Amino acid sequence: MSLEKVCIIGSGNWGSAVAKLIGTNTQRHGNLFESSVRQWVFEEKVNGENLTDIINREHENIKYLQGIKLPENIVAVPSVVDACKDATLVVFVVPHQFVRGVCEQMKGHLAPNARAISLIKGLEITSSGTRLFSEEIERILNVPCAALSGANIADEVAKEKFCESTIGCPNVQDGELFYRLFDTDYFRINVIQDHVGVQLCGALKNVVAGKNIMTLYPPPQTQPLPLSLSLFLLVGAGFTDGLGYGSNTKAAIIRRGLMEMRKFGQMFFGDMVQTETFFESCGAADLITTCSGGRNRKVAEAFVTTGKPIDVLEKELLNGQKLQGTLSAAEVHEFLSARNMTAEFPLFNTVYRIVFENAPVECIVRDI
Amino acid sequence: MSLEKVCIIGSGNWGSAVAKLIGTNTQRHGNLFESSVRQWVFEEKVNGENLTDIINREHENIKYLQGIKLPENIVAVPSVVDACKDATLVVFVVPHQFVRGVCEQMKGHLAPNARAISLIKGLEITSSGTRLFSEEIERILNVPCAALSGANIADEVAKEKFCESTIGCPNVQDGELFYRLFDTDYFRINVIQDHVGVQLCGALKNVVAGKNIMTLYPPPQTQPLPLSLSLFLLVGAGFTDGLGYGSNTKAAIIRRGLMEMRKFGQMFFGDMVQTETFFESCGAADLITTCSGGRNRKVAEAFVTTGKPIDVLEKELLNGQKLQGTLSAAEVHEFLSARNMTAEFPLFNTVYRIVFENAPVECIVRDI
Repeated sequence: MSLEKVCIIGSGNWGSAVAKLIGTNTQRHGNLFESSVRQWVFEEKVNGENLTDIINREHENIKYLQGIKLPENIVAVPSVVDACKDATLVVFVVPHQFVRGVCEQMKGHLAPNARAISLIKGLEITSSGTRLFSEEIERILNVPCAALSGANIADEVAKEKFCESTIGCPNVQDGELFYRLFDTDYFRINVIQDHVGVQLCGALKNVVAGKNIMTLYPPPQTQPLPLSLSLFLLVGAGFTDGLGYGSNTKAAIIRRGLMEMRKFGQMFFGDMVQTETFFESCGAADLITTCSGGRNRKVAEAFVTTGKPIDVLEKELLNGQKLQGTLSAAEVHEFLSARNMTAEFPLFNTVYRIVFENAPVECIVRDI
Repeated sequence: MSLEKVCIIGSGNWGSAVAKLIGTNTQRHGNLFESSVRQWVFEEKVNGENLTDIINREHENIKYLQGIKLPENIVAVPSVVDACKDATLVVFVVPHQFVRGVCEQMKGHLAPNARAISLIKGLEITSSGTRLFSEEIERILNVPCAALSGANIADEVAKEKFCESTIGCPNVQDGELFYRLFDTDYFRINVIQDHVGVQLCGALKNVVAGKNIMTLYPPPQTQPLPLSLSLFLLVGAGFTDGLGYGSNTKAAIIRRGLMEMRKFGQMFFGDMVQTETFFESCGAADLITTCSGGRNRKVAEAFVTTGKPIDVLEKELLNGQKLQGTLSAAEVHEFLSARNMTAEFPLFNTVYRIVFENAPVECIVRDI
């Protein structure tokens, strides 16, 4: 059996943490994988030097994951075509808005039996329908695409703090292979078949709750905030600090959110979406983590204390990386409205009303 | 249809918060309930006066729920027999060690059609088997007994902070009645039929994780700590503050705990225990709350900062009330050992090894 040739598409904070996992595992499982792993790095100048050159010399992504050494078998490559050439396993970990463009460039360059896995937390949703990023990758590249999602704050993973993650892969054999590619003693993988549910969890958690921080915290924002941030502000900080609710209330909102996520999944994606998935790391655990900290907390706190706009804080605090969360309450609302179904999702609907219709924040406990 | 006559057995912190809910609802639903509600109060002297006299004059349980007014239709009664005489709905909210004795006294005094509901978080478990408190109540008093459990920190409920709770009641009509008795706009009830699962959740969450705080925090304790406290120290404080783990890790332990709770329930109580129950307030939400604060936090913080024994702190900080959590890792371990099944519950087992066999705390992330 020939060895799997792995490539990683993306090199941000999460992509770099993942490169550390994958580089370690391709060495560890030499019977399955070629040791060398090419990682596509969006080229940019750092201190006057190419980021790829720095990574290949220092074995560290000094811009997006400072202080963490990468295995030496990770090779940074500035051309996406060179990076993916003849790859048999492709790991997508790029910002969602790059997926389509990158895939178009990769067309025709993968090995014929290639398989992909998407680490992108998101879902495209419009009034006419939904599209998962795994579907987009499958459609453009004509390869099967699994998904990985979990309670995985990148910096903590990079520092080898114990956590779990979920891989959704309909093909059992491929699932086993991805398990070997990602699982370590501090990053524990559960493989399930429901790749749709895994992606839905990652996308919808950001809509569980949003808050009109325009109301609570000056100055007024002109653009809708990322809902991952709103979620944190609402559940993690807003309630206790701002409105004086307690931990019972937080837990209730988290729980209701989980229920509406599942209902949404099963209503619009059908039986493919398993109840069990919501017990996985990608479900309940990720929602709990999102509500308690990570990059959201960092930016949220600065937002409250400095009043600077979110994009400025992303530049200052995250080196220009964006907060995760592609899906907004507005998009979900538009989708549900078109189907006359907003009443079936009282939490999603209330979040929308608070953020966009100036409903009082207290509605979150009154109307759900 | 004659009106239901409600009595409350118990008047601690939770019992008093519940009396406020019930007193309000019997007035609100005058078509279902007699307004007047008798509450059995364990008589004691407070400032030289009977606690029952104080409650009936001030409409406040100044010892266990200071600062919260009770509805005037709540009548404190020092005799349990007088309190329960001819009652048709009996609410049990006493410490678990009183259940048997109190039920024995009540025998023969309830109305013939009486039904009960247990708010006691616990489960008796020995190597020979398990017994739910609802079963104990049913056995002694020969009445059907439902259960209520949820993410319900008493002080927050008393202050009308929004939360949810779960009632497990096999009989649908009785479930509807209990719904009316407890549900308010800030205390939202979901009724399900799985009363066994509801009680298991409340009991097992305290075993999800324990920690050898004897190891981490001096001075050595001579008696095993309540596991509700251990849980908080481990997940809520111990890891982040003591061992440097992050929120991913906390979420992973909470999730694994939920999974082992469900597995335990379904393995030893069979199909009666529904997966859905673990999505209810009594399941995931209560576990999240337990890991984030409440009385556990208060006592745990004082334990760490003062080093005083737990029973002293309970006296000082909780007016002598006990931390909840009747079930210890040792009891569960004994039960599982007798069945040769400790390996099937790696989290429960690891907690036991840390607390009683001096295994290093790091095992919690290495061995689960």
